[in-house]
Amino acid sequence: MRATLMYGPGDVRVENVPDSVIKHPTDALVRVTASCICGSDLHPYHSMSAGNGPARMGHEFIGVVEDAGSAVTTLKKGDLVVSPFAISDNTCEFCRENLQTSCSHHEANFWDGIPDEGGQAEAVRVPLADGTLVKLPVAADSELIPSLLTLADVFGTGYHAALKGGVNERTSVTVIGDGAVGLLAVMSAKRLGAEQIILMGRHKSRTDLGLEFGATDVVAARGEEGIAQVRELTGGHGSHVVLEAVGHTPAYDQAVGIIRPGGVISRVGVPQYNEAPVGFDSLFGGNITLTGGPAPVRAYIDELMPDILSGAIEPGKVFDATTGMDGVAQGYRDMDERRSLKVLIRPSL
Amino acid sequence: MRATLMYGPGDVRVENVPDSVIKHPTDALVRVTASCICGSDLHPYHSMSAGNGPARMGHEFIGVVEDAGSAVTTLKKGDLVVSPFAISDNTCEFCRENLQTSCSHHEANFWDGIPDEGGQAEAVRVPLADGTLVKLPVAADSELIPSLLTLADVFGTGYHAALKGGVNERTSVTVIGDGAVGLLAVMSAKRLGAEQIILMGRHKSRTDLGLEFGATDVVAARGEEGIAQVRELTGGHGSHVVLEAVGHTPAYDQAVGIIRPGGVISRVGVPQYNEAPVGFDSLFGGNITLTGGPAPVRAYIDELMPDILSGAIEPGKVFDATTGMDGVAQGYRDMDERRSLKVLIRPSL
Repeated sequence: MRATLMYGPGDVRVENVPDSVIKHPTDALVRVTASCICGSDLHPYHSMSAGNGPARMGHEFIGVVEDAGSAVTTLKKGDLVVSPFAISDNTCEFCRENLQTSCSHHEANFWDGIPDEGGQAEAVRVPLADGTLVKLPVAADSELIPSLLTLADVFGTGYHAALKGGVNERTSVTVIGDGAVGLLAVMSAKRLGAEQIILMGRHKSRTDLGLEFGATDVVAARGEEGIAQVRELTGGHGSHVVLEAVGHTPAYDQAVGIIRPGGVISRVGVPQYNEAPVGFDSLFGGNITLTGGPAPVRAYIDELMPDILSGAIEPGKVFDATTGMDGVAQGYRDMDERRSLKVLIRPSL
Repeated sequence: MRATLMYGPGDVRVENVPDSVIKHPTDALVRVTASCICGSDLHPYHSMSAGNGPARMGHEFIGVVEDAGSAVTTLKKGDLVVSPFAISDNTCEFCRENLQTSCSHHEANFWDGIPDEGGQAEAVRVPLADGTLVKLPVAADSELIPSLLTLADVFGTGYHAALKGGVNERTSVTVIGDGAVGLLAVMSAKRLGAEQIILMGRHKSRTDLGLEFGATDVVAARGEEGIAQVRELTGGHGSHVVLEAVGHTPAYDQAVGIIRPGGVISRVGVPQYNEAPVGFDSLFGGNITLTGGPAPVRAYIDELMPDILSGAIEPGKVFDATTGMDGVAQGYRDMDERRSLKVLIRPSL
């Protein structure tokens, strides 16, 4: 079968690899019908250590169950399923608290942590299939597939940011980052009732989509100028909630600059730094809360799916390009160079 | 009048200073009947820059209103009052949200930020008296004074830690620090229903008081050994809530080490550091929330006072020494060298 491997910074290849097969009774084998490239895939694309490659790539996919281990009870051959980016048993104490990204099962992991499997491939072995996979009530060729695919990561991640940030109808919200997660954080903030949603981003085609998703204001400036503009838009004191969907230090500093005293900075951009300011002048003095983390998207699928099925929302609009396996490496380049917002992969193309 | 000044590290002096007088119509002049030394006063006592001295000290006091400016409407001569450590108008948008430490009035400040006034003195000019001061329904010589004095800072601060941490009957709680704030964080966690309250501290007389206030376990070990002991006490996964009442980097690192995935680290020890780990391996990966800050104790006085007046709780037990003005410098030494937990100052002695 064909799969995507990253050998090092800027070096993505689609190669023939041994077919994925069921190894444990709780596994399912899924033939991938739709996958995609994530903004977080660009982090190793920039800075992967040579010793860490080649790595199998892809943590978002929809596919058809081809086979299921003897212990799998909820899935059968032919089911169309979506996989969260985190594998979980969905029964441990953390899963029961809707923190599936901290599942305590010994097979629990993020897809990016599993050496020989990945979603940007023709097939995947899915551990803990009953806990991890969610059945989709549509056909594999449904027009809703792009939107349903966002449930694997980016929509659930944007929603997690907004939930952890405590967004409601009384909070002003600023979203930092106009990637897919940032744009879906806008959609999520709107969903939770926020009346002012400021989107900080510099790419007009993306911020235009943000406006369509519910942003009320766009601030293209960054750094001190961007901070000043957000403060002006929020009556001088800053934003009640900041959703940080980038993961780099300047975005963190920007969040600290625009947060209102008593406010919440909710991070879902995977931090590419270890230390950051948390002292009196950054977080402490103003009673700022810093929260967020990898989104337990498994917890949000049941809640978010109905509005996709009904057509009320269309998060799949974040996909602006589609490719087969042959175009995956180009897809990485296009996303890295901002020619594509998010690239959908159809292995059958 | 006599007042306490800090000239530099280890150099505290009680000197004659110009009498405090009313300067603005919203001021009150308060004759101090009870004040105290705070654990946070020890931070400048260790590391004050020479150029910053001499500084007037003291941000917790009870006293009698001697005079009130023409615009003061709720207080009159003879009223006994307690002052929070933060001056606030109690009417701005932040005060109305119970975040009086971020009051937007131009005269709002912490006592420690006002050059020519301080609570460790015979008298104080109190700006924004209507907003700042709270009347006490007892006499100045009441036996309840020590407990009521904790409403100025340490009890409200411990309570703030517990509230921001989201303590309830389902959370395990670990308190780092056996100073007055840590011990009253224990009392506050108990008040909010926590059934497991682990106190990390090394001074037996203090941790014994912690046990009396509601701690269920004491861990004297620090660093990796302390972390391991708390993890064992919490079923291996760590504590739902950590109340950090120290402010130094090792306490932060200890908090990160013992927090459970999805948990909340609530800081009220004034951070003596600017940067700290917040990346994937510290906070982000486990969806840890970092919160806390200077406590808006003004918001909690009405709630906490009745149980002091009824005798149901006795937070004033944190005071283990009393002195007149002559003994203030010795009081700093005694607290610094851990001979005293918290020193009460009676200027009339």
